[in-house]
Amino acid sequence: MTGRLAVVGLGPGDPRYLTPEAGETLTAAQALYGYAPYLECVPARAGQSRHPSDNREESARAAAALRHAAQGANVAVVSGGDPGVFAMAAAICEAIEAGPENWRALDVVFVPGITAMLAVAAKIGAPLGHDFCALSLSDNLKPWPLVERRLDAAASAGLVIALYNPVSRARPWQFGSAMERLRRHLPPATPIVFGHAVGRPHERVAVTTLAAAGATPADMATLVIVGTRETRMIARPGRTPLVYTPRAAAEVSA
Amino acid sequence: MTGRLAVVGLGPGDPRYLTPEAGETLTAAQALYGYAPYLECVPARAGQSRHPSDNREESARAAAALRHAAQGANVAVVSGGDPGVFAMAAAICEAIEAGPENWRALDVVFVPGITAMLAVAAKIGAPLGHDFCALSLSDNLKPWPLVERRLDAAASAGLVIALYNPVSRARPWQFGSAMERLRRHLPPATPIVFGHAVGRPHERVAVTTLAAAGATPADMATLVIVGTRETRMIARPGRTPLVYTPRAAAEVSA
Repeated sequence: MTGRLAVVGLGPGDPRYLTPEAGETLTAAQALYGYAPYLECVPARAGQSRHPSDNREESARAAAALRHAAQGANVAVVSGGDPGVFAMAAAICEAIEAGPENWRALDVVFVPGITAMLAVAAKIGAPLGHDFCALSLSDNLKPWPLVERRLDAAASAGLVIALYNPVSRARPWQFGSAMERLRRHLPPATPIVFGHAVGRPHERVAVTTLAAAGATPADMATLVIVGTRETRMIARPGRTPLVYTPRAAAEVSA
Repeated sequence: MTGRLAVVGLGPGDPRYLTPEAGETLTAAQALYGYAPYLECVPARAGQSRHPSDNREESARAAAALRHAAQGANVAVVSGGDPGVFAMAAAICEAIEAGPENWRALDVVFVPGITAMLAVAAKIGAPLGHDFCALSLSDNLKPWPLVERRLDAAASAGLVIALYNPVSRARPWQFGSAMERLRRHLPPATPIVFGHAVGRPHERVAVTTLAAAGATPADMATLVIVGTRETRMIARPGRTPLVYTPRAAAEVSA
């Protein structure tokens, strides 16, 4: 008897972003594991057990789901956005590597989803239209000097920067500090996009500049996109501006 | 009369990756524009006109679709993967900025999709599980020294690198040169993932090392993921290995 574990990306939250593959995988599962608010996005199905857990319990959740699958069950772990981008897929791999030998015999599949930076970019134009990077601003799992080094490397090489996890209650100063750091490399007028809860009912997208970015409220549900020297805004009569980064770059932009 | 232009991400190609939002937008459109092989992925609908074009005609395609929408039509431009990642969204924004004033009055929407790096990562584990970047290896729109500078910046700052457009008939040497460049920063055993046509019937995923990567065939349908010093492989009896990058990083990794 070999169990199955699927790590499923829900996308930004609204069912219109959920892929058919993700929907079918969730329906077929006998047991669902995940952060409680994500599990609430999945319609209830009779005979399917649900195992909600807290936000900071990724490793324990991964191990519990793997134990359950190793008993022969068809288990799904739900993840916001895409499971492979600052979400549950790496936690599952870490648990498999550290865990008992029989976890390596499990049928493990990863089901991709629309990650937050793609959803936010789509709301405002094409800010990720050129080379870009995705950085988690959390220093829970890496030292802050490494975050700064990566901000320096990305901004000075002309990459657009998508910032995940910009702020949390335990990390109140890091976002402002990151904006200050980026001002060493990028002009004050560089466009910055704040996408809050995009794909959910209370979504909100705001555009500001690097000079003013520190004052815009951000939280764990916010994804921030920092433009390059090339990123442009198109004013539109009666519509929100479009923000985009041109496909072409003539030279090193910083 | 205001027209509407939707720029729609098909994802990797298989309908199981197409979001409901993308499917509904395509069904509602009166006219479809796109690279011919992508248009062929969209089921035919009576009364809907189709305007296929060649691969290197993004700017002309964008202008044609905008002109059509400006006549009051509901137009969709289809894009492989996500339209905002090395695809049609930036070309549409460029055309709007350069075009007549009335194009700015159009209702323009971008519908996100599963971009290739997410589909490839999901097939093999969680190689993008830590900070990463997405670079186009094409030097059609930027000079090669800028590509090299970005490879240097990303590898030395410990970012995973997703390489789009690694090879084409007109760019035969660039991929090998990029691998050589990365060997300055990363050890020979660094895992490299080749995902060919992932999400389509002839999909193929291969894992190799930086030392051997030059010999693996790649083409325009290939997405390459270059790991970091931290990226790991988990051998599994009777299964393909899992490749993942751990969530935690102790220090600057290169």
